[in-house]
Amino acid sequence: MTANEKALEMHAKWNGKIETTAKSHVNSREDLAIAYTPGVAEPCKVIAQDKEAAYTYTMKANTVAVVSDGSAVLGLGNIGALAAMPVMEGKAVLFKEFGGVNAVPICLDTQDTEEIIKTVVNLAPAFGGINLEDISAPRCFEIEERLKELLDIPVFHDDQHGTAIVVLAGIINAMKVTNKKKETAKVVVNGAGSAGVAITKLLLRYGFQDVTMCDINGILGKSSPDLNWMQKKMVEVTNLSGRQGTLADALKGADIFVGVSAPNIVTKEMVASMSKDAILFAMANPVPEIMPDLAKEAGAKVVGTGRSDFPNQVNNVVAFPGIFKGALEGRATQITEEMKLSAAHAIAGLVSDEELNENNILPEAFDPRVADVVSSAVKALI
Amino acid sequence: MTANEKALEMHAKWNGKIETTAKSHVNSREDLAIAYTPGVAEPCKVIAQDKEAAYTYTMKANTVAVVSDGSAVLGLGNIGALAAMPVMEGKAVLFKEFGGVNAVPICLDTQDTEEIIKTVVNLAPAFGGINLEDISAPRCFEIEERLKELLDIPVFHDDQHGTAIVVLAGIINAMKVTNKKKETAKVVVNGAGSAGVAITKLLLRYGFQDVTMCDINGILGKSSPDLNWMQKKMVEVTNLSGRQGTLADALKGADIFVGVSAPNIVTKEMVASMSKDAILFAMANPVPEIMPDLAKEAGAKVVGTGRSDFPNQVNNVVAFPGIFKGALEGRATQITEEMKLSAAHAIAGLVSDEELNENNILPEAFDPRVADVVSSAVKALI
Repeated sequence: MTANEKALEMHAKWNGKIETTAKSHVNSREDLAIAYTPGVAEPCKVIAQDKEAAYTYTMKANTVAVVSDGSAVLGLGNIGALAAMPVMEGKAVLFKEFGGVNAVPICLDTQDTEEIIKTVVNLAPAFGGINLEDISAPRCFEIEERLKELLDIPVFHDDQHGTAIVVLAGIINAMKVTNKKKETAKVVVNGAGSAGVAITKLLLRYGFQDVTMCDINGILGKSSPDLNWMQKKMVEVTNLSGRQGTLADALKGADIFVGVSAPNIVTKEMVASMSKDAILFAMANPVPEIMPDLAKEAGAKVVGTGRSDFPNQVNNVVAFPGIFKGALEGRATQITEEMKLSAAHAIAGLVSDEELNENNILPEAFDPRVADVVSSAVKALI
Repeated sequence: MTANEKALEMHAKWNGKIETTAKSHVNSREDLAIAYTPGVAEPCKVIAQDKEAAYTYTMKANTVAVVSDGSAVLGLGNIGALAAMPVMEGKAVLFKEFGGVNAVPICLDTQDTEEIIKTVVNLAPAFGGINLEDISAPRCFEIEERLKELLDIPVFHDDQHGTAIVVLAGIINAMKVTNKKKETAKVVVNGAGSAGVAITKLLLRYGFQDVTMCDINGILGKSSPDLNWMQKKMVEVTNLSGRQGTLADALKGADIFVGVSAPNIVTKEMVASMSKDAILFAMANPVPEIMPDLAKEAGAKVVGTGRSDFPNQVNNVVAFPGIFKGALEGRATQITEEMKLSAAHAIAGLVSDEELNENNILPEAFDPRVADVVSSAVKALI
């Protein structure tokens, strides 16, 4: 049986990867009278007087909605709401298994920005947080920004910020290995969609001075044609020296490459043109922008990918469960830029100086310390 | 500690009466590769080609949304979405505990009919059914009707149909005890909101010929002022002899009283004016339209209430878990009138001829046979 056949067989066996279970079991009339009528009227009345009480008496305290419109699912693209369900259920499983956070998959039968916003606002009362997932750029930026304004619970687009946090954690440690400094390192981010934009923003926030974005047409600058509104904002704060040209041009002399783009688009020659001890995060999945062995042969010092069969896997699962765990426990109303930086530092800090080397810059996904450490880092800022 | 204090204490302890749990545990990289990337892409691709496959590979197969706008919650009225959460969580608990059906509380931060409809349509892909709950009349009628047209999954407003099914089951058995016949029995339904309308419709569908609705202004007829659109439809098919007057007038000579109205509005004199061996379902909660002992003293033969501390409790929990269990297992696209009648017969049939008497016309809420029997009755009609 192939791995794909096995995945199908197991999904059929599970028939839904998550279920709802009762914390209040109902085995007698007395149980029923407390968990349901007439007893249930009491917490209702208290919440009607004081909204905060919902965090004491209901699942809002520890439950997030995993919301997608199915427009940008994994590498599969715009497959729609229903076909996105296995991914959102998987995400809900990871929330619970890694962070102890309840999560409900909500796949929306609309890809209209205004309708998505309205729908999420309408369904928000039951939830303590909204995890947006697999929504295509640039709609994802507006949807997240508007929801953050409209809701008093954390809204977090994991494709953007989860990825950015783990990449930054990896870069923090990779710079220790290579003795590079954020004040002087030249960074190239290839891919100007949701992840590329969020990574660039977080790297700038962290303190990198020289970040250049590229996409399929090469270096992004103020004169680039056909930029969307978010990309237009990004070229105001990146590529300050006004470089033009291809990705190959951008990589000449660069210290760090972050790829959230397409398979095999970085050559050995391009890596060789980078500065000494180059750092590459080649996260196109399943085939990275350049295979790690080729990058190493061309002189790269640290190479990370999205894959579990190479060293230095960039895996969002070390970020989002702990981030929401902390945000919910601390009753954060937003997940701020400072919390993201703090989470990245916390993740990086899980690799001790003794363990740290070019092939070990990030904690394992299954490191049992991760969720608590990230959660504490977030909570400390609330 | 009072019962109310105990209910509050327990709700705080539960901190949410339901949780989401993983059926696919993730303890290794291999688990992760099957339940999440890259394996999860396989069921996504299959569903993208064939929507039906969602019932094989996702939780849609066995999960309902419990949707409320908080506009008519228990006896508490319009307390809003957030304050309705404890009730919707309780409902979700009952779905799972009694029917094995997963249920997710969705409390909507809008009471606009069009927005509710749009929101439910948008969030429907993840769910195999929609249980509407505690939405005020007459909006509930339009919301349910429109959603039934727009969605290809069952939509069921339990306050209407769950109540109607259990009342009909009780009446079927009460008529055996009293030797009354649907063809000749005179029925009075007091309360012309969601439950009253649905009960009346189902009794007519069952074959009662003479049903009269009343509300706070007395008997409903074609000349009654201020009827809403649904009540106008109802006076076309009820009170065919054109009676006018008060509830007391309506009850003279009536065989069956069904109250979904207000406490203590039926007097002993009114019961005494009914026909011999009268049947009363006095379901105002917690204080019924007339207390059972008073009704009995006045000559009633069978009295049911909504309360568990009197005989003949009308409790929706004997209906909705089994109805959705059957609808989901059988992949019904609608819950039809025939299914509701079939469910009522199935519930009534659980009280054997030997067990049947004036104080035992309905099965216990905790009768372990109920959900399967109701489920089978529904499935037989798919």
